[in-house]
Amino acid sequence: MTLSEQQKKEILEQQLQQNPTKRVTAPELEKILYEAIPVLDHGFVRIVDYMGDDSSVVQAARVSYGKGTKKISTDSGLIKYLMRHRHSTPFEMCEIKYHVKLPIFVARQWIRHRTANVNEYSARYSILDKEFYLPSKENLAAQSASNRQGRGEVINGKQADNILNILKKDAEQTYTDYELMLNEKYDGSTINKNNKGLARELARMNLTLNTYTQWYWKTDLFNLLNFLSLRADSHAQYEIRAYANVMIDSLKRWVPITFEAFMDYRMGSMELSAKGKAVIQKMIKGENCNFETSKLSKREWNELMESFGFKEQLK
Amino acid sequence: MTLSEQQKKEILEQQLQQNPTKRVTAPELEKILYEAIPVLDHGFVRIVDYMGDDSSVVQAARVSYGKGTKKISTDSGLIKYLMRHRHSTPFEMCEIKYHVKLPIFVARQWIRHRTANVNEYSARYSILDKEFYLPSKENLAAQSASNRQGRGEVINGKQADNILNILKKDAEQTYTDYELMLNEKYDGSTINKNNKGLARELARMNLTLNTYTQWYWKTDLFNLLNFLSLRADSHAQYEIRAYANVMIDSLKRWVPITFEAFMDYRMGSMELSAKGKAVIQKMIKGENCNFETSKLSKREWNELMESFGFKEQLK
Amino acid sequence: MTLSEQQKKEILEQQLQQNPTKRVTAPELEKILYEAIPVLDHGFVRIVDYMGDDSSVVQAARVSYGKGTKKISTDSGLIKYLMRHRHSTPFEMCEIKYHVKLPIFVARQWIRHRTANVNEYSARYSILDKEFYLPSKENLAAQSASNRQGRGEVINGKQADNILNILKKDAEQTYTDYELMLNEKYDGSTINKNNKGLARELARMNLTLNTYTQWYWKTDLFNLLNFLSLRADSHAQYEIRAYANVMIDSLKRWVPITFEAFMDYRMGSMELSAKGKAVIQKMIKGENCNFETSKLSKREWNELMESFGFKEQLK
Amino acid sequence: MTLSEQQKKEILEQQLQQNPTKRVTAPELEKILYEAIPVLDHGFVRIVDYMGDDSSVVQAARVSYGKGTKKISTDSGLIKYLMRHRHSTPFEMCEIKYHVKLPIFVARQWIRHRTANVNEYSARYSILDKEFYLPSKENLAAQSASNRQGRGEVINGKQADNILNILKKDAEQTYTDYELMLNEKYDGSTINKNNKGLARELARMNLTLNTYTQWYWKTDLFNLLNFLSLRADSHAQYEIRAYANVMIDSLKRWVPITFEAFMDYRMGSMELSAKGKAVIQKMIKGENCNFETSKLSKREWNELMESFGFKEQLK
Repeated sequence: MTLSEQQKKEILEQQLQQNPTKRVTAPELEKILYEAIPVLDHGFVRIVDYMGDDSSVVQAARVSYGKGTKKISTDSGLIKYLMRHRHSTPFEMCEIKYHVKLPIFVARQWIRHRTANVNEYSARYSILDKEFYLPSKENLAAQSASNRQGRGEVINGKQADNILNILKKDAEQTYTDYELMLNEKYDGSTINKNNKGLARELARMNLTLNTYTQWYWKTDLFNLLNFLSLRADSHAQYEIRAYANVMIDSLKRWVPITFEAFMDYRMGSMELSAKGKAVIQKMIKGENCNFETSKLSKREWNELMESFGFKEQLK
Repeated sequence: MTLSEQQKKEILEQQLQQNPTKRVTAPELEKILYEAIPVLDHGFVRIVDYMGDDSSVVQAARVSYGKGTKKISTDSGLIKYLMRHRHSTPFEMCEIKYHVKLPIFVARQWIRHRTANVNEYSARYSILDKEFYLPSKENLAAQSASNRQGRGEVINGKQADNILNILKKDAEQTYTDYELMLNEKYDGSTINKNNKGLARELARMNLTLNTYTQWYWKTDLFNLLNFLSLRADSHAQYEIRAYANVMIDSLKRWVPITFEAFMDYRMGSMELSAKGKAVIQKMIKGENCNFETSKLSKREWNELMESFGFKEQLK
Repeated sequence: MTLSEQQKKEILEQQLQQNPTKRVTAPELEKILYEAIPVLDHGFVRIVDYMGDDSSVVQAARVSYGKGTKKISTDSGLIKYLMRHRHSTPFEMCEIKYHVKLPIFVARQWIRHRTANVNEYSARYSILDKEFYLPSKENLAAQSASNRQGRGEVINGKQADNILNILKKDAEQTYTDYELMLNEKYDGSTINKNNKGLARELARMNLTLNTYTQWYWKTDLFNLLNFLSLRADSHAQYEIRAYANVMIDSLKRWVPITFEAFMDYRMGSMELSAKGKAVIQKMIKGENCNFETSKLSKREWNELMESFGFKEQLK
Repeated sequence: MTLSEQQKKEILEQQLQQNPTKRVTAPELEKILYEAIPVLDHGFVRIVDYMGDDSSVVQAARVSYGKGTKKISTDSGLIKYLMRHRHSTPFEMCEIKYHVKLPIFVARQWIRHRTANVNEYSARYSILDKEFYLPSKENLAAQSASNRQGRGEVINGKQADNILNILKKDAEQTYTDYELMLNEKYDGSTINKNNKGLARELARMNLTLNTYTQWYWKTDLFNLLNFLSLRADSHAQYEIRAYANVMIDSLKRWVPITFEAFMDYRMGSMELSAKGKAVIQKMIKGENCNFETSKLSKREWNELMESFGFKEQLK
């Protein structure tokens, strides 16, 4: 992550603000406000604004006139109850806004979360930074054999070197050609005074999907939790997970009670179907129970046994 | 509007908060934060939280690292440009939250704005306040003759008295019967110790649509502008307009530049169709132009002439 | 449910249509298209249009060029997989539209599902039908002692008679007064030729919440499943559940494979938190496990034990 | 656009369906259902399903029991009225679904329309087709001097050739390297039996933004009109406009009355602010009116004069 002097100055100016407010504040989150937290090789997450805290969830659930908080213990019990029963509307009463720098292929996954507000840097209007994501060597993995959309074994040795060389070479080549077509370097200097530059909206098509873009992204707490439960999950692609993990830290600083309830009831939770529950009930009671009598398909049976760690039961 | 001593105390406690923050603040809005601003006979609007200010719109439009504001004049020009061209996403970067007390028939119009977050007081869980909306006499109007969904001439004299009596009597009767079925008064006292109370989720069905409910309602600035342009419009029902007008005042305090652009370009603006524009062009050039040659339907022609105040041209 | 002769004729005309189409069709659903299926005492559900079938889910999940269906068994396996893992987008590719007549207090719960399209009968424009919901005697229940927002024991005998009398009397009185203020009966006849009628948008406020309204309501399959999983659940208020149950039947006729997967994996399923799973694992292995060592709160422990039917473990 | 024999066969099978339905149909749209209509060099638009027609808009606006259509002329008047006054909900009652093949940089603009349902071809799961967009020579344009996010003069001659060569060379090189890293050609053949292939989710980052992707995209009629009014507009990037223009043709076949109202009142319409209206009123009346007395900013004044074609008034 490289910030220009001007960017560092602008960030610092924001951090030096000290405004009085009657609104609730989240002191732990204030500490890292505006800071560019590095993610991947050139990306970052900056928390630029927020609204509400844990007490806002309670306040809305009770439609109360006051601050929501009666006693910490009561509030905590209510938030946990709301989380456990997937109540959504009280969590929608808090809002957070991030400034994110991320590779385009990550942005394409991220944007699928529709209940959010987004302003992306316009490559029709401006020239994109000369920055592209190159995985670190330990993150180069082969296509998974078992999971058709994931990674399997790590690739290393010479093959890994080749892959990294290809990624680097192609990103640099396409970016250089992008500048050539624009007839302008990323620092603003003109290449050939006798030529016109190709329109930016056209030239950008030559860039590779690991080029970095950036956006302002704002969402409510409920939709943030949905985002995190999907994107911080072990099945998510590593590159978006890296962002989700940084954002989970901001969650903890912002709404510590909601964070705890989220970790307890959403992350690591599983859904048990009616049939699956019947199987588990029998197993607890010590009744005879196996795949053949379970009425589950093989795939379901295996998913169920695996999620409880009963590997000897796999079919 | 009647607030209990406890409610007044809770509101005051919120207003006495003074927290330091690095976030941007809206000083004029802070002045009225949490205050219950009266609307209609028993309703209110309270601004309970907000996020961002005019500079946040600019910041997002530029995807900038800093506070957005370069110079007031530049920012103002940008905001006006965004408003004029109906850019939506930068305005989505600000958020506001209201606590509103309102008659149920108003709530039913309001809730049709889907892009908002809502927590309503639950009449399955709690007993509704004994408060119902009775129009003031000058707001009693007959069905409009010209506009099939609006009001026409004011009704007055004895008929007006009769109407107000009916509304009062029926609201009181149905509320008394609500308490009777609940076997509980709104102050919490039991009516008949030997009876069970009817479930609240059932008893509420006996209440009339002018009974007051309340909710927390949160939306982004763009959707607030949509709400206001529809609900502060002269075609909106008076009762919801009363709320919209109070909220327009909060808009002015919160984001004064956006407010000004909104008043200039959205309120009082009109849409001119391609055909309508052709008519206007001819009129400006002093060319012969009338209904017969305009290719407009009679209804459109009249709408167009009326919006420019050319009453003598009406067909 | 009372339909006028004109309404019956219009419905019949729709049912007599036989149009050729290249689109996929759902033959079992076609059989009941447009039919007014009675719900509660005066309400109904009519399916008026639909788009797609089970094969559309498969087609979208595969982004295929053809009809989606390879083999019934493969498709069924895929749909079950998508349901189990809460994949949402393929189910969004089917759409259904209902015409519903329902009491206003039910409409107020229903409208909270925001991801749907709605056109409601306008009481600013038209006079509402003289129909209001009166519960049948077996549905009159006292407020629940354990669940603060539900029903408990049935109320019967004289108290039940009284309640029903009150509901009937108040609905009739307020409706008669509605007509009086409008100066127009619901059949269109004028009451007093010398009077003006109060504007409809005002007069409606005198009606009780059990008055029937109606709307067109359209949603995609994924959001329909969300609606049904909440509203056909035993915790939903009986009156909205009555609608959800009729709609579940339409689901079965429309997308039988999705219906089956929904019944298997959503209805009757439970969410097991990470801590809850640890408890269950110990119980299966026969390890010592009780409330004290579980790290669960009492409320959670009880919810967990109850959901597995282990009543002797309740604290 | 190249379709495989298998794809052609699957499309044909869909087109040969002839199912009876009681639903309304759009005969002109049925004629082109499933057909792959070419767009740009390798893209297409296929209409794969739809729900409703013009009569559905009317039916919902009236919340009627029957087919909506009274008389064509009455229906047409109502639809035009709804369009002119930007009523949204009745238009939401129709739905359409497209299968689209499009360059990734176009997909990135398109996806910003959030109120739609999307299933995109997964490059984590599958290998993308070896197809990339190369502009035709007459579409190569320089960055606009006046509009900072558009195109200006056409680039031609040798510079144009160079640009096209670069785009072709880089797309081919990055795709070849994509295959190399995957250790698999796009036809499925393995490159080096001794190597593992890089995970697809990683390898894709090497592709350029003009690579084609595809998706199923479904939206309601109201949101389709929003999409078209923005993307068929002359300010939209040519490449997405090419898609919008094909979709406008499908609009005409599907809902001809709505199409006509859309062309009359949305396309080519302009918004006139309150201040702008005052200027126009004066001009019509022949009153003295110029920039200095108009209270408009220079930018607004010029936008206004330009939109009426009064070039001599530009400042």
